Amino acid sequence: MRKTIIGVMGPGNGATETDLQNAYQLGRLIAKNYWVLLTGGRNAGVMDAASNGAKDANGLTLGILPSDRPVNLSDAVDIAIVTGMGSARNQINVLSSDVVIACGIGAGTLSEIALALKANKRAILLNNNPKSHEFLKMLSPETVFAVDTPEAAIARVKQILSDSHI
Amino acid sequence: MRKTIIGVMGPGNGATETDLQNAYQLGRLIAKNYWVLLTGGRNAGVMDAASNGAKDANGLTLGILPSDRPVNLSDAVDIAIVTGMGSARNQINVLSSDVVIACGIGAGTLSEIALALKANKRAILLNNNPKSHEFLKMLSPETVFAVDTPEAAIARVKQILSDSHI
Amino acid sequence: MRKTIIGVMGPGNGATETDLQNAYQLGRLIAKNYWVLLTGGRNAGVMDAASNGAKDANGLTLGILPSDRPVNLSDAVDIAIVTGMGSARNQINVLSSDVVIACGIGAGTLSEIALALKANKRAILLNNNPKSHEFLKMLSPETVFAVDTPEAAIARVKQILSDSHI
Amino acid sequence: MRKTIIGVMGPGNGATETDLQNAYQLGRLIAKNYWVLLTGGRNAGVMDAASNGAKDANGLTLGILPSDRPVNLSDAVDIAIVTGMGSARNQINVLSSDVVIACGIGAGTLSEIALALKANKRAILLNNNPKSHEFLKMLSPETVFAVDTPEAAIARVKQILSDSHI
Repeated sequence: MRKTIIGVMGPGNGATETDLQNAYQLGRLIAKNYWVLLTGGRNAGVMDAASNGAKDANGLTLGILPSDRPVNLSDAVDIAIVTGMGSARNQINVLSSDVVIACGIGAGTLSEIALALKANKRAILLNNNPKSHEFLKMLSPETVFAVDTPEAAIARVKQILSDSHI
Repeated sequence: MRKTIIGVMGPGNGATETDLQNAYQLGRLIAKNYWVLLTGGRNAGVMDAASNGAKDANGLTLGILPSDRPVNLSDAVDIAIVTGMGSARNQINVLSSDVVIACGIGAGTLSEIALALKANKRAILLNNNPKSHEFLKMLSPETVFAVDTPEAAIARVKQILSDSHI
Repeated sequence: MRKTIIGVMGPGNGATETDLQNAYQLGRLIAKNYWVLLTGGRNAGVMDAASNGAKDANGLTLGILPSDRPVNLSDAVDIAIVTGMGSARNQINVLSSDVVIACGIGAGTLSEIALALKANKRAILLNNNPKSHEFLKMLSPETVFAVDTPEAAIARVKQILSDSHI
Repeated sequence: MRKTIIGVMGPGNGATETDLQNAYQLGRLIAKNYWVLLTGGRNAGVMDAASNGAKDANGLTLGILPSDRPVNLSDAVDIAIVTGMGSARNQINVLSSDVVIACGIGAGTLSEIALALKANKRAILLNNNPKSHEFLKMLSPETVFAVDTPEAAIARVKQILSDSHI
C-alpha cells in the first residue's frame, strides 16, 4: 500500500545555517512519524540535511534528481529517482508529495511552492522571510501556511493529512 | 537561423481585464518587432489574448500545451507543441524564451517566473501587484524588472537582447 | 490556426549517406506541401539534413532540443524548443507531429517509433532494414507503414492526413 | 546509501498469462536479492504482477506513474512517484534502473528498451518473440540480452551489476 510521502524543498548552496538545522529536524520528525521523506536528492543544502535527519531516525529517503545519472547524490538518499529533466523535476517533487514543506527560500524552492499551489497541494513555509509569507498567502490564502519551527510544520502536516482522509 | 522568441506568461481563467489588454498589446508589439511569440497555448486568458495580438500584427505564434493532444488550443496559435506534461511544460516555456514577460500573476505564472530566475533568465513583471515586485526583486535583484506598460516591457526586452549580444 | 506538423526522426551521428539524402528530400517535400518540419533540432545527421532540405524549399523548421540551452542546434532550424529533458523530449516530438516519419534506424529513432505507436500515431518507416519492418509491423499492423522512397513517404502522409480529416 | 534498483517493464492490459507469471517471479527474485523493484506502477499487467511478487517476498516496490495523481496504482506499490508526464515517464523508469528487464513486449515496453539502449543501459528481454530478439540484438549487440526464464534474467542482472562494479 502506498506510503505517505512528505516533501521537503529548499535551497542547495544558498541554504542558511538555520535552514540546515530546520531541515535536519524536519527529516528526523518525518521519519519518526513513519512517513517517507522526499527531497531533490542532491548532496547540498536542505536536501542533504533533511535526508541526514531522516536517516538518523531510521527513515526511508527518496531523492528526485535533476541529472541524468545518479551523481551529486546525497549519501543519505536510499532511493534515487533519476529524471534527467533539470528543474522540470520540481513538478514531480510536488506531485509525489502528500504535503510540501518549503524550508528556506530561493528561486528553485519558489518554483516548487508555486507548482504545489497550481496543483492544489498544501504548502507549508518555514523561513524568516515575511515578504514571502505575505505574497504567497495573498496568492493562495487557503493552501499556504507559514510556521516558525519544524515542530509546528509537522503539526500542520498531521492536520492536513487528517483533513484529507475525512 | 534561430529566431528570437519572447515568452508571455500569465493566468488563464484568472486573468483580469487589464491583463488581457496588456497581453494583446504585448503580442502586437512582439510581432511588430519580428520576434516569435511563445505562450502556454490554451484558448484562455493571457495566452489567448497575446496570441490574438500577435496574429493581428501578422506575427508567428507558438503555443506549448500542457495536454497530450492539441485540444483547448487558442485559434491564434500557429504552431502547437504538444507536451503531455502538465505544468512541467512551464520549464520548456522558460528555457525556450529569450526573455520572459509575466503579464498578471497567479500560481502557474509564478512558477514560470521562478523557473526563469533559476535558469538565470531575465523576467519582466507587468502587473498591479506591488507585493510580487517587492518579493521577487528581493529574491533576484539583478534579473527581475517591474514595468507599468506593455511598451515599457518591450523597451526592456530590447535592452536585454542588446546586452546579451555584446 | 494550427499548422500541420510532420516529424522526421532519425539518427544523428549514426545516419548513413542514404539516410541523409532521404532526409534532405523529405525536408524539401514537406516544405513544398506547406507543412512545418519538426526534428530533434541538432546539427547532426537526419535532423540537420531534413532541416536543410526544408529551408532550401523555403519551409518553416522546428527543432525540439534535448539540451537546456540552444546549443548544437542545426543552422537550418528556425524555431528551437529548448526542453532540457534529454531523450524524454522524444515524446514531445511524437505528440507534436501529425505524422511521424522514421528516416533510418537507431535506438533513439526506435524510441520515437515506439512512442508514436503507444500514442496511436501513424509511423512511416524509410530505411533498408527489413528486420525493423517485420518486427514493427507485427507489433502494430494498422499503424506502421514501410516505404522505399521519400516520395512514397509523402504520399502516405497525404493519405493519413486525408483519412484523419474525414 | 543508494539502493540498487531493478526495473521490470512490460505491457499493462496486453500482458499474456506467461508474462504475468514471469513478472511475478521476477518481482519475487528481485526482492529476495534485496534490490528495489521499479515498475510503471499501474494496477495492470506486468507492473501489478511484478509488484505483487516483490511484496510477497517482503521487497520494496517503486511505481513511476504516468498520471498526475496516485490513481490506478497497484496495491502492491509502496512508493508512488507521480510524474504527470504520460509515456515521457518511461525515460525516468529507464534512467532510475540499474538494469532494465523487459517482460513481454508492446509499444510502451519497446520504447523503454529503446530508451535504455540510447542511455547505454543493459536491457534483458524475457519474451517469446524471436523477431524482437533478432532486431534488437542487431541494433545493439553488446547491451541486449535475451533470456528464457526469470531465473536466467536474474543471473544476467547479477553479472551486469558485478561487471559494473569492477
